[in-house]
Amino acid sequence: MIVPMHEQFRNRNVLITGGLGFLGSNLAIRLVGLGARVTLVDSLIPEYGGNPFNISSIEGQVRVNISDVRDEHSMRCLVQGQDYLFNLAGQTSHMDSMENPFVDLDINCRAQLSMLEVCRKYNPGIKVVFASTRQIYGKPEYLPVDEKHLLRPVDVNGINKMAGEWYHILYNNVHGIRSCALRLTNTIGPRMRVKDARQTFVGVWVRAVVEGKPFEVWDGQQLRDFSYVDDTVEAFLLAAANDDVNGRVFNLGGETRVALKELAEMLIRANGSGDYRVRDYPADRKRIDIGDYYADFSSIRSALGWQPTVPLGKALALTVAYYRQHLPRYL
Amino acid sequence: MIVPMHEQFRNRNVLITGGLGFLGSNLAIRLVGLGARVTLVDSLIPEYGGNPFNISSIEGQVRVNISDVRDEHSMRCLVQGQDYLFNLAGQTSHMDSMENPFVDLDINCRAQLSMLEVCRKYNPGIKVVFASTRQIYGKPEYLPVDEKHLLRPVDVNGINKMAGEWYHILYNNVHGIRSCALRLTNTIGPRMRVKDARQTFVGVWVRAVVEGKPFEVWDGQQLRDFSYVDDTVEAFLLAAANDDVNGRVFNLGGETRVALKELAEMLIRANGSGDYRVRDYPADRKRIDIGDYYADFSSIRSALGWQPTVPLGKALALTVAYYRQHLPRYL
Repeated sequence: MIVPMHEQFRNRNVLITGGLGFLGSNLAIRLVGLGARVTLVDSLIPEYGGNPFNISSIEGQVRVNISDVRDEHSMRCLVQGQDYLFNLAGQTSHMDSMENPFVDLDINCRAQLSMLEVCRKYNPGIKVVFASTRQIYGKPEYLPVDEKHLLRPVDVNGINKMAGEWYHILYNNVHGIRSCALRLTNTIGPRMRVKDARQTFVGVWVRAVVEGKPFEVWDGQQLRDFSYVDDTVEAFLLAAANDDVNGRVFNLGGETRVALKELAEMLIRANGSGDYRVRDYPADRKRIDIGDYYADFSSIRSALGWQPTVPLGKALALTVAYYRQHLPRYL
Repeated sequence: MIVPMHEQFRNRNVLITGGLGFLGSNLAIRLVGLGARVTLVDSLIPEYGGNPFNISSIEGQVRVNISDVRDEHSMRCLVQGQDYLFNLAGQTSHMDSMENPFVDLDINCRAQLSMLEVCRKYNPGIKVVFASTRQIYGKPEYLPVDEKHLLRPVDVNGINKMAGEWYHILYNNVHGIRSCALRLTNTIGPRMRVKDARQTFVGVWVRAVVEGKPFEVWDGQQLRDFSYVDDTVEAFLLAAANDDVNGRVFNLGGETRVALKELAEMLIRANGSGDYRVRDYPADRKRIDIGDYYADFSSIRSALGWQPTVPLGKALALTVAYYRQHLPRYL
């Protein structure tokens, strides 16, 4: 049974790792609106997604704790007393994971295991929702990709996220720490990182059009789906609120699939102006390119009634509007 | 094209991690016979499979280096100049991995990544064969299990081995470090650990019948397949010798599948005497039990012509004969 969301989170204690990041901050804003008592953990490592400005609209209404998920002692303190853990902290850059695989391992594997051990020892009643990624599927064998598709990651980040996801499922199944995982597709919206492509290439595009500069489209024929961050946040809340999905893994996805060149055109329309150049896919990234990807999200639709509600054009317009107003806070 | 094995390894430099263990020592003995120059690395951690007695028959014909695969500096020295790396070192105990997940992570993930980084930086021409395990499949959805079966590990060991396997495939695909992986099923034979069940439950059974004591069969109805170590060794040599299989993953398997109760009967026949008790599956292991498992190994048969050659009854007889002679060296 799906409990009305506003009841489920009111006065409940919620911990969000990566809480100053793109997804974490949007989730925090929503949860504050639902009456939750929210604690945000973020390391504010400059290369990652955390940005204090992301929560300026809820300042004073959330507790902010600057620490690293690799810091077991900090996590041990923070996890205690929480009803929900949205476990979003992670290293997300594919290129960084190839250049420094051990940092990626520490954050995406060791820290996840450590966090789950902390839950097991100090707060076994907590409910955990983990942010996984479509990246772990690698190059699709068939489309749309459903959860029965083999995991064949093409970079260190994908391998470590795969392990991180499975620790959550394991701790649910073996230790009874209620957990589930959402495999996110490309997510866009206000508060995403636009300084560089470490979080999403769309960030760089948005920055460019807002600054009136041309951006680069690599290849441009690849198909992708996109999720607007408010839809993504909704999926996290639904997954947290329902114990039927414990131990399960779900794809998120977008309502439409577009070629990246088409996305570029839509972005320019959303902005009212802009320019891009198509270039070949860079050689050093070619080997970890996955070609087309879009998700079958019928599993979460059946289980939780979730589906995308914000069309891509509107998502782009909302995103551009945000950065027209706030871009300097993201550079 | 399959090059005759005796040509392929003569005067070639071969490094085996876990070289004093069950599989590593049998592989070393075979490789010495083929004229290879063999270096064995082993940490001799008491809970693992290493045992200096395992290589008593080739003493003086191999180089033995006692060090840990987590020791990057040691690995950096040892990897240089090698033509082949048989990467067999690992933490194998499912229960230990649940009790101390971080040790398992360090050995089965971090050290594997570190080893591959060492290969990439100091010996990119090396060929690597990685010992993976059927454990990563978890509880089968269908039987026999082929390589298209989803990986759904049921313990920390399985998750970390899954990541370790994929690092090898990734380094092959992205960095050109020629690698492939074999997913071993239950392997039995001379030089296996019989002191306890950390490596295989069959070890404890063999020890018991040789000592004239009863052994315990848990449940007994579970179906399994078994590979005799000489067959397993052959698969490693074939995989090393053939570059067609780089980037690929293969199941090994046994010719016959038997219920564990039937295996117990066969072992007693092989020994000429013995006794066992059937008991319920222990509660603390029940949650990581996988039920029936046996492999479809048609993929490696097609690619490399590999198939089991030693029938299970003979495998058990050879194993018992070995421990009748040498049991005290394994206690």
